Amino acid sequence: MEAVDRPPNVADVEAAAAQLRGVAVRTPVLESEALNERAGGRVLLKAECLQRTGSFKFRGAYNTISQIDASAVVAYSSGNHAQGVAAAAKLLNKRATIVMPADAPAIKIENTRAYGAGVRLYDRARESREAIGAEIAARTGAALIRPYDDPRIVAGQGTAGLEIAEQTEAHGLNLHVALAPCGGGGLIAGCALALTSACPGIAIYAVEPAGLDDTRRSLAAGERVANAPGATSICDALLLPTPGELTFQINRRLLAGGLTVTDDETRQAIAFAFRHLKLVVEPGGAVALAAVLTGKLALEGRTAAVVLSGGNVDPALFAAAITARSQ
Amino acid sequence: MEAVDRPPNVADVEAAAAQLRGVAVRTPVLESEALNERAGGRVLLKAECLQRTGSFKFRGAYNTISQIDASAVVAYSSGNHAQGVAAAAKLLNKRATIVMPADAPAIKIENTRAYGAGVRLYDRARESREAIGAEIAARTGAALIRPYDDPRIVAGQGTAGLEIAEQTEAHGLNLHVALAPCGGGGLIAGCALALTSACPGIAIYAVEPAGLDDTRRSLAAGERVANAPGATSICDALLLPTPGELTFQINRRLLAGGLTVTDDETRQAIAFAFRHLKLVVEPGGAVALAAVLTGKLALEGRTAAVVLSGGNVDPALFAAAITARSQ
Repeated sequence: MEAVDRPPNVADVEAAAAQLRGVAVRTPVLESEALNERAGGRVLLKAECLQRTGSFKFRGAYNTISQIDASAVVAYSSGNHAQGVAAAAKLLNKRATIVMPADAPAIKIENTRAYGAGVRLYDRARESREAIGAEIAARTGAALIRPYDDPRIVAGQGTAGLEIAEQTEAHGLNLHVALAPCGGGGLIAGCALALTSACPGIAIYAVEPAGLDDTRRSLAAGERVANAPGATSICDALLLPTPGELTFQINRRLLAGGLTVTDDETRQAIAFAFRHLKLVVEPGGAVALAAVLTGKLALEGRTAAVVLSGGNVDPALFAAAITARSQ
Repeated sequence: MEAVDRPPNVADVEAAAAQLRGVAVRTPVLESEALNERAGGRVLLKAECLQRTGSFKFRGAYNTISQIDASAVVAYSSGNHAQGVAAAAKLLNKRATIVMPADAPAIKIENTRAYGAGVRLYDRARESREAIGAEIAARTGAALIRPYDDPRIVAGQGTAGLEIAEQTEAHGLNLHVALAPCGGGGLIAGCALALTSACPGIAIYAVEPAGLDDTRRSLAAGERVANAPGATSICDALLLPTPGELTFQINRRLLAGGLTVTDDETRQAIAFAFRHLKLVVEPGGAVALAAVLTGKLALEGRTAAVVLSGGNVDPALFAAAITARSQ
């Protein structure tokens, strides 16, 4: 696919920002005294859970769909890309079909349908979402909207990073470090394009669930390596076997490295965000915060940006995380 | 007390905004497609749960304490004013003692202590918080920081309304209606000063829990009336017997009326905010949203501002609200 051959650059991120102006939410950057004290530095939280559809995925989806001619789109996603594509397609008057795993959080499936998209459920163990998506695209003429390996998607997600740079500058602060959750790597690749351009010398870290640290190990190895089959986590948004091809091209060049957190550390980060930030953050959206809370990186005297990438979490999981005694 | 004799005006609110600049969070105004569809109009949500200390109370507390000479302060509060005073006193290098009911939410008591304040618990049924506060003030020379009946408090809370007016104008919108939770009436009185000045013709409604609608009934009667003794609600922030003296002077002049919601409607509003807004809202902070969700006011074709005034809620109550089947 030719799109993969042309990696995006910071100008593409800026163009995406112009495309998204007045459509995407310019999400706030929030601070917590409790968190700053714990980190010994300043931690700026980019609240992408407050984005349209409850995650950053709307950015890339809208940027991509606004550039295609087809009157219908198809996507495969465990949920956040699904909602992003469904909502963007609705705004742009295109029909959307989303291929989702039958075990995706109910809230993500319901919300995707609520945006007017058709949902095709599949069995994660027995069926290939790529094959189903390609079949629907071939049969209906719908354009396939990839979740991360597309320069328009990466540029769209990068607008979150562009905003972080602008918002940090408006606070008169100099960013030393940035951390973001990493699944396929589109969010962090896009943010890295924007942030390394705006903040020379910044160290950017991908954060992944333990056992699903394909990006961390790929960065260390210098090539894309896969997670062990069957590895799983409560971070449903981050359950991918390998880094993306396009995203890894960018990330190996721009990232400082990868960090991992356990599911229990992620649950505690969800509880912290509930208690101190008053934000609803989903497991996959909370891993970068979890890395800060557990001191995976020394932040004394430094200023760090942390992306809270989404908030689409089923009530039962959230309720269990906030009422657990370990917080 | 002479302060009560001099009601604040919009110039006082503007002066408070200058005082709070760079200290209070300029909280975002958020929108939800699901909510707009349900209301048939545009609903702008002022997310004061994202304010320092998790509620709007920081605004009035900081504005007041920054104007006093005493090196110590004392306050009585079920929790949000407590945290606001404790955090503001800490920032301004003053000692704080807070008189809190023993049955206040644990999270509010713990957070108040975490800001470095001394906490004196009392029995809501057998002791008078006013008497305890006055005794501490007399004995220690601490300045009493009232929760609402003080023009500096009202002006401080009104900065939330000033921001709503500015943020709405930045969106190119014209506000027709505003709704805010009402306990002692400081928040809505301050917001009414700012909003009636910036948006002539706006209709402003106080929202209260059913059975604790002293402001609604007082507005109808033209004089301050009390709730039935023993009336209670899950809205711990709004459990007050009568409207404030100063606040009612303002509210009877500027408000369009009062609305009430049941505790079950409030729980459903908490669940809605969890699901669609990704915000943690406490019961007392969710009543104005509950009024919109249950259609207590016709909003078709109109633009309404709704204040989500706080997010300090105990995990067990929140977990029960979001997992209840009725949502």
